Amino acid sequence: MDQVRLTLHEVHALAVQALSLNGCDGENARAVADTVTAAERDGAKSHGLFRIPGYVKSLKNGKINGHGSPVATRLGPCVVAVDGDRGLAPLAIERGRPLLIEAARENGMAACAIRRTHHYAALWPETEALAVEGLVAMAFVNAPPYVAPAGGTKPFFGTNPMSFAWPRKGGGAMVWDQASSMTARGELQIMKRDGHDAPPGAGIDKEGNPTADPAEILEGAQLPFGGYKGGAIALMVDLMCGPLLGEVSSMQAGAEDNKDGGPATGGELILAFDPAHFGGDDPIGRAERLFEGMLAQEGVRLPGDRRFAARQTTPSEGVEIPLSLHQTIMELV
Amino acid sequence: MDQVRLTLHEVHALAVQALSLNGCDGENARAVADTVTAAERDGAKSHGLFRIPGYVKSLKNGKINGHGSPVATRLGPCVVAVDGDRGLAPLAIERGRPLLIEAARENGMAACAIRRTHHYAALWPETEALAVEGLVAMAFVNAPPYVAPAGGTKPFFGTNPMSFAWPRKGGGAMVWDQASSMTARGELQIMKRDGHDAPPGAGIDKEGNPTADPAEILEGAQLPFGGYKGGAIALMVDLMCGPLLGEVSSMQAGAEDNKDGGPATGGELILAFDPAHFGGDDPIGRAERLFEGMLAQEGVRLPGDRRFAARQTTPSEGVEIPLSLHQTIMELV
Repeated sequence: MDQVRLTLHEVHALAVQALSLNGCDGENARAVADTVTAAERDGAKSHGLFRIPGYVKSLKNGKINGHGSPVATRLGPCVVAVDGDRGLAPLAIERGRPLLIEAARENGMAACAIRRTHHYAALWPETEALAVEGLVAMAFVNAPPYVAPAGGTKPFFGTNPMSFAWPRKGGGAMVWDQASSMTARGELQIMKRDGHDAPPGAGIDKEGNPTADPAEILEGAQLPFGGYKGGAIALMVDLMCGPLLGEVSSMQAGAEDNKDGGPATGGELILAFDPAHFGGDDPIGRAERLFEGMLAQEGVRLPGDRRFAARQTTPSEGVEIPLSLHQTIMELV
Repeated sequence: MDQVRLTLHEVHALAVQALSLNGCDGENARAVADTVTAAERDGAKSHGLFRIPGYVKSLKNGKINGHGSPVATRLGPCVVAVDGDRGLAPLAIERGRPLLIEAARENGMAACAIRRTHHYAALWPETEALAVEGLVAMAFVNAPPYVAPAGGTKPFFGTNPMSFAWPRKGGGAMVWDQASSMTARGELQIMKRDGHDAPPGAGIDKEGNPTADPAEILEGAQLPFGGYKGGAIALMVDLMCGPLLGEVSSMQAGAEDNKDGGPATGGELILAFDPAHFGGDDPIGRAERLFEGMLAQEGVRLPGDRRFAARQTTPSEGVEIPLSLHQTIMELV
């Protein structure tokens, strides 16, 4: 496949331009471009420029408010609420973050309850941003139904990712971010685009039969990772960012969506914990010794390490995107 | 296999007697017997009377303080600390619970950080007890290393279970409690005892080769559920109940343990969330509609349903335990 090489600066500028010229105000365009650029920088292609056409479609048809101005308020000592104003999630997350950090540092733990927003990115940017501030973080978001519950054959859950981040000594973070489906939906879309098979167990066709064809899975149902245990995680994620916040479940998000392929409306929950409040001796040092012990085994790496490795090289080398994707985006600007 | 039938009252009395006559004071014996009886009542055999010989061994050799008197204190608005006094977890959990509920209701969320305790039971009793009070709950506990990290071949994590509970309309709870290993260790022990094969992917032998022999897995390493994603959960659990609390990781718990087969020392973290503080409309009703939608699919059940079904019949029918186990326990009383 023909590729186009871009610097990270060019990635960001292209994203800003495509969003600004298609209904986003400057601050929303910049916030979304930040997450798109971070994904390209980390080699997480399915959350990079690949997402731009979907964002633009939903901006143009009015599903997403490109001029959304999210408002963050402290509901109580530990709960920060953000009204997303029907806009894109990155700006809502940014506006909630300082209050969430403040609440967690004051009380030991806090939650950021984001409502009325459209999430179409990875979750690790929000948990990593808290971990580099010295906080332990979790995040949960749902999406229209693509994944069958354990034992079922029809889509019911979104790919419902959960992310977890832990502060490293010296300022970095250990971060994981994983769909509760066996495969992220964006990865399946990329497998379909590139003509690759899906891994065994990734999903079933419309009749409920196992298949390795990503196109059939996208029309049928994805499956949770690890059987019923991944299904239990998917359910927890749905409850934590949906009903707990008075927001939509995956099924409701799907029912209310205009099916344009862009991000549906919904909620997101971010939790932050300040280790200094838990009364324990040397939490960060203890974790470092745990990581060292893990890495002493051959073949073992820490979650997120591939992304962090990519991050070292892309600022100088730039990134490659498929020519076809580049052409699609160039038609938008 | 020959079985002995017992009423739940007999299960409780037998557990109290075996513990009291082997080093437990009355309150600790009663608290442990409550969890053992709840497990038998719910058909969760690997946490029932099956555990008594292990408890007794560790009480007799002094690893566990059978007269432990756990002390619970509010460290701050959201954090309750419990010093387990080197005793068994059930009494420590009980003593922390009222303060945890109070803190969560006051602030929207709270944590119970239990240190210096020995956990040898399921986690669902503590999360379910919070959900029936109307709180959303999570719990995390680790154990000596039995499970290889993703990509590795040597034990590093405990089976590191996590539990999640959600309050149902009308007072019940949806509860899951799952090891981050593919198979719970107690289940493997029972498979070995009963001469059954372990499921594919459950573990590897001492040389790192896949095996279905539960005895070989118990001496080699168990594997996380769902590959690297289950491994990421195991790591999160280890960090949340170990380093975050200034407590031992699975590896440290193993290094400090006397390897008698009874529960090792360590920490436990319980989180509680009060939906009333999150500013959302009708969280419990929304969740009920989510559950209804899930159950509308043929073949789908809610997590915990098998336990709740068993709970309906055991009070009248009683439970069966293997004659050999009954004889072992009778020798202790």
